[in-house]
Amino acid sequence: MALVYTIKIKHIIMQHDYNQEALDLHKKNKGKIEIISKVRLDNKDDLSRAYTPGVAEVCREIVRDSSLAREYTLKRNTVAIVTDGSAVLGLGNLGALASIPVMEGKAAIFKEFAGVDAFPICLDTQDTEEIIKAVKQLAPVFGGINLEDISAPRCFEIEERLRKELSIPVMHDDQWGAATVTLTALINSLKLRELNKEDARVVISGIGAAGVATARLLLSYGIKNITFCDSKGIIHNNRNDLTKEKKELLDGSTAERKEGTLVDAIKGAHVFIGLSKPKTLTKEMVRSMAERPIIFSLANPEPEILPEEAKESGAFIVATGRSDYPNQINNSLVFPGAFKGMLELGDKQFNNDVFVKIAIALSDYVTDISAEKILPSMFDKGVVELVSKTVQE
Amino acid sequence: MALVYTIKIKHIIMQHDYNQEALDLHKKNKGKIEIISKVRLDNKDDLSRAYTPGVAEVCREIVRDSSLAREYTLKRNTVAIVTDGSAVLGLGNLGALASIPVMEGKAAIFKEFAGVDAFPICLDTQDTEEIIKAVKQLAPVFGGINLEDISAPRCFEIEERLRKELSIPVMHDDQWGAATVTLTALINSLKLRELNKEDARVVISGIGAAGVATARLLLSYGIKNITFCDSKGIIHNNRNDLTKEKKELLDGSTAERKEGTLVDAIKGAHVFIGLSKPKTLTKEMVRSMAERPIIFSLANPEPEILPEEAKESGAFIVATGRSDYPNQINNSLVFPGAFKGMLELGDKQFNNDVFVKIAIALSDYVTDISAEKILPSMFDKGVVELVSKTVQE
Repeated sequence: MALVYTIKIKHIIMQHDYNQEALDLHKKNKGKIEIISKVRLDNKDDLSRAYTPGVAEVCREIVRDSSLAREYTLKRNTVAIVTDGSAVLGLGNLGALASIPVMEGKAAIFKEFAGVDAFPICLDTQDTEEIIKAVKQLAPVFGGINLEDISAPRCFEIEERLRKELSIPVMHDDQWGAATVTLTALINSLKLRELNKEDARVVISGIGAAGVATARLLLSYGIKNITFCDSKGIIHNNRNDLTKEKKELLDGSTAERKEGTLVDAIKGAHVFIGLSKPKTLTKEMVRSMAERPIIFSLANPEPEILPEEAKESGAFIVATGRSDYPNQINNSLVFPGAFKGMLELGDKQFNNDVFVKIAIALSDYVTDISAEKILPSMFDKGVVELVSKTVQE
Repeated sequence: MALVYTIKIKHIIMQHDYNQEALDLHKKNKGKIEIISKVRLDNKDDLSRAYTPGVAEVCREIVRDSSLAREYTLKRNTVAIVTDGSAVLGLGNLGALASIPVMEGKAAIFKEFAGVDAFPICLDTQDTEEIIKAVKQLAPVFGGINLEDISAPRCFEIEERLRKELSIPVMHDDQWGAATVTLTALINSLKLRELNKEDARVVISGIGAAGVATARLLLSYGIKNITFCDSKGIIHNNRNDLTKEKKELLDGSTAERKEGTLVDAIKGAHVFIGLSKPKTLTKEMVRSMAERPIIFSLANPEPEILPEEAKESGAFIVATGRSDYPNQINNSLVFPGAFKGMLELGDKQFNNDVFVKIAIALSDYVTDISAEKILPSMFDKGVVELVSKTVQE
């Protein structure tokens, strides 16, 4: 108990320090990104080439052949990070203005990790049709659309419609970034646990944006024995409150059809994937699982169960969404390289297969896997190249 | 004739060179701006401050006090350059995609001249209400809106409505940038010509976006004797095709009420301001003006009359929109500093008075005025500071 208590205190202190340090950093720098010129503008000749009159010829060329916008403008390398502020981190519906620091941070990561230019588009509307319309109107200057922190179920329709109605790639990162890294971690966990994907019994708790996408990728990969739980318990055919997405997942799963709560679902399972709420998994529930269970406790910042508690209860591998524990499920492993690859390709669209292939490539990339290291480091310079190349193949 | 012919050939050659050089520059650099991170992201601590978990506290602070978005994010220093591509340079309605090079060039100027971050928003709609709605939805992340290359008369309503419905400053640069520099040039021209503003007889040809704004600023400054001409000739009360804007201008002018064409309007005038079409002013028309007339021949790239032709016909001072003649009326003298000043102030709005004050300050700034130098150089580092300070006062 003393050990657990100490660790908890340590986390509270760390959290506090980052808060103040984050405020200081943001205030000192007045934000995190800036827009700079790549060309010199020191004299009239410079201006005549970069601006009038020379720029008119560049415009005329794009009128003649619209594909030249990719050659002559920022479009080729620029992604919009689009949010409506309805599901900001784990903080909920904060609105557009308060979501800016997250989107700006993401833009900084895009550039630092992958050399991709990204700009925050924080929309002052939460209406599905208006968001779709606004993104389509904005699209000309961008080579890709990263949807971010838009709440379920609206995020599904927005992504699906934009993929159909735009020619540039569209990806909701809360879905596919999280899902791809989770699948990566699971592939390596099953290797260590010496379980085939056909035999693994998986429970996913939390069927929001990330939960639905994770379930879809696991099914695509061939992990079919999945029991799904939402806030009302196990998802089963006798419930009359299921969304289109939940019904589809149920149809794809081969798990024994049970009714009940998460407590019932978890018994005998090999894998728990939590994308739900703090403290929804108890030590007793972990003890009721198959031996040496795999626990992905991904609620942020406070997980479904603390890693030390899971380990005490027999967990073999634990992953969280936090940077202060081993095995952080962090979508920064995927989105920078995924867009970098797509921008190289031009007008192609993301699909499930791409993300499954990225997960397989990333899992193979970790040559020294152990229970404390099931994922590559996001600071490994090879990761972005690997993901980008996988997308391009 | 030989001299004129040579000069024309020279212009054709220069134009050609800039075109190819502009294409080369754009292709080599793949556009002209990039988005970079102002913070290091080398390790987990860096990410914990710039992104999760630390960024959550920055979001929470903005929820508590929305004015902190200016302290903690890019909003403080970032301007949207918004166009619908309906009136790109003098090239007409090219649409959103082909307008990108111009907006990107403008963003480069914003940064290089004033340190302001600016991002191109090239909207794939030309509907007035949809543009207004899109800009309002986009506004949270920006500290100001620079409307650009939107055709008249829609540009008037879009600017007016956005100024009322947004708290951040909004300026249509084709109107106010052009108008402010024109007034600056005119103030100094009248000094050299030794004419009082009350006595100057002015003809403005072309009552589009720039023409309307120029007329409004001249009237605000106290130059009241203005005859307005559009493509149908002199604007007068007996015409039944006048827009709201044209009627207002007519009401504000003290010029003798004439009917007829530009040929009739120009007789005896001291000043011609052309914001219309190439070759609409002939040598004969210049000779019919008052002696030593002032000719602002601002159609771009080909002016209403070439400077050498105007001079041959007795013009005292000639200005154009071109960088290859003296006295270039270039709105780069105004917009970088105007937005820099407004961003410092926060939630204030542009109005006519601000632009008149900028024009007076800029005209006073040229201490060595001559017929060949009625404007400051846009490469003079003092210009942005002067304009910014004038706005803040």
